[in-house]
Amino acid sequence: MTIPNEQRLCLEALHVGQRFVSATHLMDEARMKSFAAEFDPQPFHLDDAAARQGFFHGLAASGWHTAAAAMRLFVESVPIANGIIGLGGEVEWKRPVRPGDTLRVESEVIEIRPSRSKPNQAVVKMKSTTLNQHDEPVQTLIAKLLVFKGEASLAE
Amino acid sequence: MTIPNEQRLCLEALHVGQRFVSATHLMDEARMKSFAAEFDPQPFHLDDAAARQGFFHGLAASGWHTAAAAMRLFVESVPIANGIIGLGGEVEWKRPVRPGDTLRVESEVIEIRPSRSKPNQAVVKMKSTTLNQHDEPVQTLIAKLLVFKGEASLAE
Repeated sequence: MTIPNEQRLCLEALHVGQRFVSATHLMDEARMKSFAAEFDPQPFHLDDAAARQGFFHGLAASGWHTAAAAMRLFVESVPIANGIIGLGGEVEWKRPVRPGDTLRVESEVIEIRPSRSKPNQAVVKMKSTTLNQHDEPVQTLIAKLLVFKGEASLAE
Repeated sequence: MTIPNEQRLCLEALHVGQRFVSATHLMDEARMKSFAAEFDPQPFHLDDAAARQGFFHGLAASGWHTAAAAMRLFVESVPIANGIIGLGGEVEWKRPVRPGDTLRVESEVIEIRPSRSKPNQAVVKMKSTTLNQHDEPVQTLIAKLLVFKGEASLAE
């Protein structure tokens, strides 16, 4: 973590409507293909010619590569104390991510649900939209994060 | 794609309750750390000592690494014609994935919703559970896939 934990936001410092904007990340064609070769080996993620004839009409990043790249931008732009602990989320891929696209992530707190059994923690829902250089959304993620109060021990 | 497209399942060949079981994948500690360094650089995914003192009580894979590894197993075990085209899904991380865990993915068709505007295609929901070597679920994913009838042109 580049931001010291004492400068990060604990549960008491979060509120619905709070927004965060990330830096940007360039989607490199070689990395798109190597990610796909390891995790999502399908022609439309691997091969330009095949991709042009297929559903995406051109090479497209694996959705999981987009999700992973967005996570990096999210982690670096949403400074939650003790880190980003994701319980899960709803992801939607809105349009293809192309080689050379520059992505950024805009995130907003949309719900804070205190735990009934553990008063020191809450599940915080954040909506995180990944946009390309044309301001078009390529992915949305509604993430459920576990967030602790400032006094909560890391050991729970 | 290792399976020729003509041997793959088009929409007419899918039915609710249909199940698929993947091969297995070993989660390598060095790869867990390098994935996290690129996409999810947080101490509990990167550093053993920090991880032991933190929420996960030991090094844990980034959830997005688990999701990506599960995608590879899914792509190789669910032979849908024209490939796996994911519109999105709901992911839940159930428990930490540890170095040396061996994962497999069990998938089931849970809903087939024909498109109103495009009679040649449907949105197919699949529930995909990723289990470790102790048969414990580490991740569930309810994925929305776009699937085409056999006669549907790739160009739509």
